[in-house]
Amino acid sequence: MKKISFFLLCSLISVWTYAQEAKYVFFFIGDGMGVNQVQGTELYLGELDGKIGLTPLDFTEFPYATTSSTYSATNGVTDSAAGGTALATGTKTKNGTIGMEQDQQTPIASIAMLAKEKGCRVGIATSVSIDHATPAAFYAHNPNRKNYYQIGKDLFTAGFDFYAGSDFLDPDNHGQGESLYTLASQYGYTLARGYEDFMAKNEQADKLILLQTEKASATYRDAIPYAIDRREGDLCLSDITSAAIRFLSKDLSKGFFLMVEGGKIDWACHSNDAATAFREVVDLNESIRQALQFYENHPDETLIVISADHETGGLVLGTGAYALNLQALQYQRVSETAFTSILNSLRRQTGNRVTWEQARQALADNFRFWNELKLTEQQAKRLEEVYCRTFTSSDVEMEKSEYAQDEPLAAEAVRIINEIAMVGWVSGGHSAGYVPVFAIGAGADYFQGRMDNVEIPARIAEIAHYQ
Amino acid sequence: MKKISFFLLCSLISVWTYAQEAKYVFFFIGDGMGVNQVQGTELYLGELDGKIGLTPLDFTEFPYATTSSTYSATNGVTDSAAGGTALATGTKTKNGTIGMEQDQQTPIASIAMLAKEKGCRVGIATSVSIDHATPAAFYAHNPNRKNYYQIGKDLFTAGFDFYAGSDFLDPDNHGQGESLYTLASQYGYTLARGYEDFMAKNEQADKLILLQTEKASATYRDAIPYAIDRREGDLCLSDITSAAIRFLSKDLSKGFFLMVEGGKIDWACHSNDAATAFREVVDLNESIRQALQFYENHPDETLIVISADHETGGLVLGTGAYALNLQALQYQRVSETAFTSILNSLRRQTGNRVTWEQARQALADNFRFWNELKLTEQQAKRLEEVYCRTFTSSDVEMEKSEYAQDEPLAAEAVRIINEIAMVGWVSGGHSAGYVPVFAIGAGADYFQGRMDNVEIPARIAEIAHYQ
Repeated sequence: MKKISFFLLCSLISVWTYAQEAKYVFFFIGDGMGVNQVQGTELYLGELDGKIGLTPLDFTEFPYATTSSTYSATNGVTDSAAGGTALATGTKTKNGTIGMEQDQQTPIASIAMLAKEKGCRVGIATSVSIDHATPAAFYAHNPNRKNYYQIGKDLFTAGFDFYAGSDFLDPDNHGQGESLYTLASQYGYTLARGYEDFMAKNEQADKLILLQTEKASATYRDAIPYAIDRREGDLCLSDITSAAIRFLSKDLSKGFFLMVEGGKIDWACHSNDAATAFREVVDLNESIRQALQFYENHPDETLIVISADHETGGLVLGTGAYALNLQALQYQRVSETAFTSILNSLRRQTGNRVTWEQARQALADNFRFWNELKLTEQQAKRLEEVYCRTFTSSDVEMEKSEYAQDEPLAAEAVRIINEIAMVGWVSGGHSAGYVPVFAIGAGADYFQGRMDNVEIPARIAEIAHYQ
Repeated sequence: MKKISFFLLCSLISVWTYAQEAKYVFFFIGDGMGVNQVQGTELYLGELDGKIGLTPLDFTEFPYATTSSTYSATNGVTDSAAGGTALATGTKTKNGTIGMEQDQQTPIASIAMLAKEKGCRVGIATSVSIDHATPAAFYAHNPNRKNYYQIGKDLFTAGFDFYAGSDFLDPDNHGQGESLYTLASQYGYTLARGYEDFMAKNEQADKLILLQTEKASATYRDAIPYAIDRREGDLCLSDITSAAIRFLSKDLSKGFFLMVEGGKIDWACHSNDAATAFREVVDLNESIRQALQFYENHPDETLIVISADHETGGLVLGTGAYALNLQALQYQRVSETAFTSILNSLRRQTGNRVTWEQARQALADNFRFWNELKLTEQQAKRLEEVYCRTFTSSDVEMEKSEYAQDEPLAAEAVRIINEIAMVGWVSGGHSAGYVPVFAIGAGADYFQGRMDNVEIPARIAEIAHYQ
């Protein structure tokens, strides 16, 4: 039987560290990352390694692991605004509300604000737009998560040192307001577009906002590309995290608080796109590795906490047979959303006269159907039927999920690869399932026992002496 | 923000307790109890208390909580035999195998056997038959979990002090073998039938097997009744646990190991019957309370660990809307299986000419449809259609799940109440989702960090000095 002296060691270490102030705090939030999103990714990696069992991610091997409940003040199932607010402020609020009490009037200070008050440097980073619910909960106060322009303005009021995301969703209040880019400059922020630009401007900048290039934002403003769709030169979460650490480390004497959101796990799960979601979790893990490198150099003063705002999609690992076949997901080469773009291109190229052979080839190329992945007669027929229904008429109803409107053929292809992988989903919305909590470093032993989401920032604040 | 001095205290306590040998070990296994089965039960109780949020079970408030993976040696999704063997022996094996290596030939000692070797008193208890996979994994070695007679014989070879369950499934090897009841007597076991009989025989008995009454076994041999269906006089898991503690406590100087399985959480989940499953989790919690009472009297020497062999059904809390309505489940008065019996009785009483009015009344009485629970037109129509399909012909195909063959009308009623409660399910089988681990008492701090199922008995063995 496995020796557990490691755990004895942890117990001893925990005594020593509990009183240790966390000077450098990393808070990673996997949006929509329930326990099955994590476990599924590890079992997928395990199968890719040719075994039954899991290949652990870095963060699941942290010495402290537990689970957290996520319900909001008003709903059994939270949205990202109330979930983000709970994680940022330690207060449950009404769904849709950013950084305010349930009355939607009283602002609440986030731990990022408390960190700033204490004199720490602060960074807020995400793979989606910087004004999206989760990052916003750390710097903004707004009764409505969709007031992107007002939320964007709060970013300057909060005045943190570093922000990063794909872009602002509504930089000029639908043409009615002063540009947030102009305001950025007025508030003393340097704007960097892409990682190279960041590296060029990093040293001189006093405060900095890192966004993707304008060219990238012209095609996909709402988020950086999914990891599965990434091309060379695309901004990625790992680079964002690396940039954040580099920027915040310019004056280590102050300590820092950095929140990094893996925002597109949620998006992939809203589309029930398992292959894309698991790669996003791997991508979040890559970002966490950046923090671990920092931790290794400052182990006594660094705390890294990983959690999630809620589960998305009702992901289930196993569909009835006592088996999984997650390795099949490796053959999916693009996200459902990117495959929609491929089909759209085909439509354009052919004057909307895509033949079944062309559609079939696209499916073969991007999902390896009829190649590595054999289809049942029924599955092949389903694809052809969806093709006939949606490609022989110009009036196609897209499949809508929270963040995408996808070609029905793309959605059907993803449903079929999920079936082959034996992955089930219950909905296109969120669920109230437990989310995981992992912690390492100074004060990590506070993260024991089953938790509620509001306890997470409370414990971080206590460990880091933010109050 | 919530004060966390409790956790500091835990850290300090943990240092003191880690070296403390656990003389009295309780290991509770919720069969099929994934994280959502626990969280769902708490959110259900919370709604019954009139709030959004959870009312905690006793065991979720234990100071140590984490999650465990459950895959078997051969399958991404384990069955209860391989899952039970992992939890009993610390070794992953082939699905279907009890207490043997993956070769299905080499027996493996369980922690119960190691406890006995050390001189501890040992008890194995369950709410299903005593020869079922989970309890069997602690005392038997068999390549096939369905060899109930051979497994039953192993119970005597293991020679533990106390066993409890509904009954033996195959007490005479289909009429070909010596009765296990006779063997019990030969091996020095006192047979008690029901709790009263146990109380009468407890003091005199050297070793004891507690089963339900013969009358009860005549109607439901395979398990004691679901908590939701329980009637006065029925044996229940809480009484079984109380009996086990009373029996093992007759000589406390030896210490003891007691495994108690909540076996029917799994069965209810195989039928996707949420109301029944949540009440089973509450029932397991009631049993754990018995252990907590013991713990309170022996806090320094008692370890209580709670976990599960796997998740069943792919239970998801939320079906797309950002809400739950779990309180609706309170109106379900019987399990799907018991409602099948009610419908069967109606068939008998009417010479299989049940009218829609009679079926509708049964639905109203047992699910409170058309009363506290309003149905949509569509839902009402679905029930009537299932009635028409299955009650106007004598040739009814039952809905089969792992442990039940239910009336289609019963299954449809449960599907509809799940819809109303906003509970989703993915399958009638197991899944590979994380299961929870909770621990309190001597050495409980070993249960930190994300675990794999085989680590749980390894840690128990180390804490209790079984090797």
